[in-house]
Amino acid sequence: MSTPNPDTLDVIENEYPDRTTKLELAAPEFSCLCPEKPSQPDFATIFFEYVPDEHIIELKSLKLYLTSYRNVEIYHEAATNQILEDLTELISPHWMRITGKFNTRGGITTDVVVDYGDFDEGEIPSSNATRMENLDRIASER
Amino acid sequence: MSTPNPDTLDVIENEYPDRTTKLELAAPEFSCLCPEKPSQPDFATIFFEYVPDEHIIELKSLKLYLTSYRNVEIYHEAATNQILEDLTELISPHWMRITGKFNTRGGITTDVVVDYGDFDEGEIPSSNATRMENLDRIASER
Amino acid sequence: MSTPNPDTLDVIENEYPDRTTKLELAAPEFSCLCPEKPSQPDFATIFFEYVPDEHIIELKSLKLYLTSYRNVEIYHEAATNQILEDLTELISPHWMRITGKFNTRGGITTDVVVDYGDFDEGEIPSSNATRMENLDRIASER
Amino acid sequence: MSTPNPDTLDVIENEYPDRTTKLELAAPEFSCLCPEKPSQPDFATIFFEYVPDEHIIELKSLKLYLTSYRNVEIYHEAATNQILEDLTELISPHWMRITGKFNTRGGITTDVVVDYGDFDEGEIPSSNATRMENLDRIASER
Amino acid sequence: MSTPNPDTLDVIENEYPDRTTKLELAAPEFSCLCPEKPSQPDFATIFFEYVPDEHIIELKSLKLYLTSYRNVEIYHEAATNQILEDLTELISPHWMRITGKFNTRGGITTDVVVDYGDFDEGEIPSSNATRMENLDRIASER
Amino acid sequence: MSTPNPDTLDVIENEYPDRTTKLELAAPEFSCLCPEKPSQPDFATIFFEYVPDEHIIELKSLKLYLTSYRNVEIYHEAATNQILEDLTELISPHWMRITGKFNTRGGITTDVVVDYGDFDEGEIPSSNATRMENLDRIASER
Amino acid sequence: MSTPNPDTLDVIENEYPDRTTKLELAAPEFSCLCPEKPSQPDFATIFFEYVPDEHIIELKSLKLYLTSYRNVEIYHEAATNQILEDLTELISPHWMRITGKFNTRGGITTDVVVDYGDFDEGEIPSSNATRMENLDRIASER
Amino acid sequence: MSTPNPDTLDVIENEYPDRTTKLELAAPEFSCLCPEKPSQPDFATIFFEYVPDEHIIELKSLKLYLTSYRNVEIYHEAATNQILEDLTELISPHWMRITGKFNTRGGITTDVVVDYGDFDEGEIPSSNATRMENLDRIASER
Amino acid sequence: MSTPNPDTLDVIENEYPDRTTKLELAAPEFSCLCPEKPSQPDFATIFFEYVPDEHIIELKSLKLYLTSYRNVEIYHEAATNQILEDLTELISPHWMRITGKFNTRGGITTDVVVDYGDFDEGEIPSSNATRMENLDRIASER
Amino acid sequence: MSTPNPDTLDVIENEYPDRTTKLELAAPEFSCLCPEKPSQPDFATIFFEYVPDEHIIELKSLKLYLTSYRNVEIYHEAATNQILEDLTELISPHWMRITGKFNTRGGITTDVVVDYGDFDEGEIPSSNATRMENLDRIASER
Repeated sequence: MSTPNPDTLDVIENEYPDRTTKLELAAPEFSCLCPEKPSQPDFATIFFEYVPDEHIIELKSLKLYLTSYRNVEIYHEAATNQILEDLTELISPHWMRITGKFNTRGGITTDVVVDYGDFDEGEIPSSNATRMENLDRIASER
Repeated sequence: MSTPNPDTLDVIENEYPDRTTKLELAAPEFSCLCPEKPSQPDFATIFFEYVPDEHIIELKSLKLYLTSYRNVEIYHEAATNQILEDLTELISPHWMRITGKFNTRGGITTDVVVDYGDFDEGEIPSSNATRMENLDRIASER
Repeated sequence: MSTPNPDTLDVIENEYPDRTTKLELAAPEFSCLCPEKPSQPDFATIFFEYVPDEHIIELKSLKLYLTSYRNVEIYHEAATNQILEDLTELISPHWMRITGKFNTRGGITTDVVVDYGDFDEGEIPSSNATRMENLDRIASER
Repeated sequence: MSTPNPDTLDVIENEYPDRTTKLELAAPEFSCLCPEKPSQPDFATIFFEYVPDEHIIELKSLKLYLTSYRNVEIYHEAATNQILEDLTELISPHWMRITGKFNTRGGITTDVVVDYGDFDEGEIPSSNATRMENLDRIASER
Repeated sequence: MSTPNPDTLDVIENEYPDRTTKLELAAPEFSCLCPEKPSQPDFATIFFEYVPDEHIIELKSLKLYLTSYRNVEIYHEAATNQILEDLTELISPHWMRITGKFNTRGGITTDVVVDYGDFDEGEIPSSNATRMENLDRIASER
Repeated sequence: MSTPNPDTLDVIENEYPDRTTKLELAAPEFSCLCPEKPSQPDFATIFFEYVPDEHIIELKSLKLYLTSYRNVEIYHEAATNQILEDLTELISPHWMRITGKFNTRGGITTDVVVDYGDFDEGEIPSSNATRMENLDRIASER
Repeated sequence: MSTPNPDTLDVIENEYPDRTTKLELAAPEFSCLCPEKPSQPDFATIFFEYVPDEHIIELKSLKLYLTSYRNVEIYHEAATNQILEDLTELISPHWMRITGKFNTRGGITTDVVVDYGDFDEGEIPSSNATRMENLDRIASER
Repeated sequence: MSTPNPDTLDVIENEYPDRTTKLELAAPEFSCLCPEKPSQPDFATIFFEYVPDEHIIELKSLKLYLTSYRNVEIYHEAATNQILEDLTELISPHWMRITGKFNTRGGITTDVVVDYGDFDEGEIPSSNATRMENLDRIASER
Repeated sequence: MSTPNPDTLDVIENEYPDRTTKLELAAPEFSCLCPEKPSQPDFATIFFEYVPDEHIIELKSLKLYLTSYRNVEIYHEAATNQILEDLTELISPHWMRITGKFNTRGGITTDVVVDYGDFDEGEIPSSNATRMENLDRIASER
Repeated sequence: MSTPNPDTLDVIENEYPDRTTKLELAAPEFSCLCPEKPSQPDFATIFFEYVPDEHIIELKSLKLYLTSYRNVEIYHEAATNQILEDLTELISPHWMRITGKFNTRGGITTDVVVDYGDFDEGEIPSSNATRMENLDRIASER
């Protein structure tokens, strides 16, 4: 049985470690396998929000990491938590939140939200202009 | 007269009980009967938000449970409260909120919101990327 | 096993039989049972377009007729064709088209379109201002 | 019992009678009474499309004419046809089409389309930029 | 001169008085008369949000009550406040808020918001899944 | 050089001075002249939010006041502030906020927000059902 | 009384006169005065579609020409026809269509469509990707 | 190297072979591999439109067939054509059209459209109420 | 002065030359320079529709070709026509249409449509499910 | 290698320094080069929110400043931080926030948010009517 592979993950240096920067990423092409019916792939959009400390996640390596779930049998809740664990271990951010939005199954949709870090939400720069606040604008999902 | 049947409900184990996880589900294919005009079915979308403790609601069993209302004569407010009672008894979550959004009747719409648990809302992981925040994206309702 | 019941259908007189009038109706609260999994109800929106001759379908009786499918096991294609047959037999319209738009099953959606009558489409009054052309505006489905 | 009052209707002269001009109007604040339940008002948006000959319908008088239906008991199909008859008698246009889009009743919507005149549709100036083609943009209805 | 008639209002018993339930209703078919130009009807959508104590407003009686404004000459601000007064007198809710959203007049729109009750907003169950948070979904207004 | 003319502004009495009422107005047909290129008119939508004390702004007079900017050369920030000053001087509201949303110039848009009054925002009745929260619904701008 | 001024209009050469090119322009900042109430400006979006012969309308000069209507008292139909006449006289295009979409007045909207030239519509390059087909995308109007 | 597997495809009998029925299906969870970068999966929505003769494609078997592309290296154009060939060989429909809508790659999107059969398009029942005409409504893709 | 560089363009073989296939591409990241104000870059989305003969445009090479306009001073109409000429020379398609949708300048938008080839439009496979028909879904532009 | 050029930036005087004014700007036509693949330009929308002290950023100079990034190789995070640094140095605002929303790369989107100044967010005038809160309305990006 396949397992997710965090070894592909890579980082780049945060050029402005002294300023609190918030990053928001959206990856709409996530796919894994349902543990109960492995022949039926699941599809989801994964959202990442984080305040980096010294490192930023390198985008291409993140894409490869997400692709490593393609043949993994894993529940929605476990996949979302696993991604949070692998990424926080990689870059030890000040704060991180992962949201998994899984496609309808049996007429019911499931979203999973988990976060990490003791940062006070009021201290995180946050803007109504980002995609997270304007999901209609997420490109590849449309 | 038919009654809702919580016996079909089943659970799966929460693999990450030590991390606060928020789950959001949307079930747009809910139907019951109007107590005043039983020959006229009502239709609604039911939204579930919860922070599980040791158990997560199994999706297929939830679908069957919701289907058990199909021939039940019940008011909008009572159906929403009944679902909250059955589900909190099933999994004793840290926190749960049920929202029933019922179709127009006589040109007026009714939504019902009830919740359970003393969790401080600030402690619940919550993201602007979920369907609850982006209802245009709920699949089966469209 | 239950069958659809056209006996409830009623008509009203067309007050303007000499003018070609087009009627478009949308009924978003249709539900029947899947022949392969009768415990799992199907949900659809049914659209009706027709040019009446001497009679118009009475709205309340149409609602009751659609409700008579609630416990009928029937395929998407059969339900759409059956509705067309019952309604054309009822009012012998100049022309009629039935569209069934069924909710996602297994990640795939199905729509069925059938029509009746030799009316040249160019002769049917048709406007870009109707709901059929602006489905975002269909009330109860939302 | 009240009846619609075409006497309020007034015209202005068409300054460009030699050029084929198409006018499209939308009046979202139409209300009349249901003949079967007169205590329950019906609401609709009425769309007008026409190619004037020598006269154009004066806007303010059109508003008053539509308001004269406020206490009239009339079916959807009859109201739409009556408006067409009153307006074509008023201005003898080359071509006219009336579309009535009535609010949901019993979970079912009804739209009615009727037209007048032998104008070949290909000869009517028609643009994808008008409101009729972009109903999301109709002001007062929103 | 006509006045609004609260006598039609009726209640049903709240089956779950011990649980804080929030109800949200939308009535898009409100119409009254402008005091300055009584021949010109005004149109609005009225939103109701409340936390019931022992009684819930009966829907059909609410519809009749709103219809009683149809021939009343009243300003936007007065209509919204009058509805709040009549309904709070009827059911003595823990908390209530009325929002009147009136159609454009002279190119300017007016919305009026009033509320009642000392309930701390944090104690009111409130969900991003309701229509109040997703106005695009209000049926009859579309 | 033309100047804005507050003399046209008129008030009506607030019939419910003891209840905190919030009013929200939208005027999408504002136009003035650019001080740097007076031959090029600027266009904006002006939003007004206020809690009246004893007086409410009369709508028609507000429209005339806004029209008085049509030939005035004024910067975006100055116009928004000037409107706030004239209106607060007129009705001495408990609280007021003016938002000017100006059309794109050189590919960049500018919005200006200013407010007045020491009212605690928590005390202002505020609803997610108003146009201010649902800008897609503002009529004339569309 | 002011009149529209076509003298500002200028042209540029069509570099590809041998290929049939279709141009579509949208100018959402059009304003003129109502002949019946000159103190009340009207606002519209003007759409231009044309197949140039030897000349193309210079954009900046078109903007100045449209601005010359700012103090002109003119009806909706007349303004739309006048623009067509001035522009066809300027560049003698193979084909041109002008659409004026005027803001709501008295709760009713008016759109005017006029065209020029004997070009067979089938010969005009036309694409579903243009703004005319996707009015939600017109920049300055939003 | 993996190849698509049409052996899973199954049919059900068309109960109304004498009436021309049009079916429209949407499958938003299609995924295959890029021949040039096999480590990078491609994602697409596949639309099916057809007029069946004696057989209809069984939905579950269609889902399995589409899943068989998950590890196949194939170009966009080839995948779309291959699906058309396999399905027309399976059910010999009167007419069929396949549309593949592939996600953005390098900032450019690709859609592929192919069809089969000599049916005159005017003979195919076709309605503006289907999902194909209202893509905003396709469930799982959102 | 820079010029567009068609040398980067490359082709792949059409695997199904005997079947009429329609391709639709959208490239929203086009930028060039305004000939009159070279310091001010222009931005556009370019749409490509074509029926290939023996060759298909290689996507990556198309991206590089479009990027070669980044420092070219060129009018909207000329850019659109130049792209059509370079691409038809490259692959000699049965039919091709290029649509350039340029960002607002001076409050006016410009779209340019040109096509090539004598293919009868009725012979081109065309589907309402493509992005060209559903521009809201074009990824990178949002 | 090119660098961004803050020398073009210019200011205008804040006419109302004693009133807390919030400005929100959106510039959708930002483009720079990817440090890892300099031949591939990046595209973004930059949002600016600030409370000016004595100076306001002159719009035309801001446009030129943003254009100076056109040939600069710079990461998403660095560009957003650099813009914040240059602008705060220019006008020493009470508070400023920059949001960079970059187009999809490799199927993943990135947004960057940074802010400056100790202003308590509660003291900043902020309205739900601005574009920042209604991104669907940003002109040039569409």
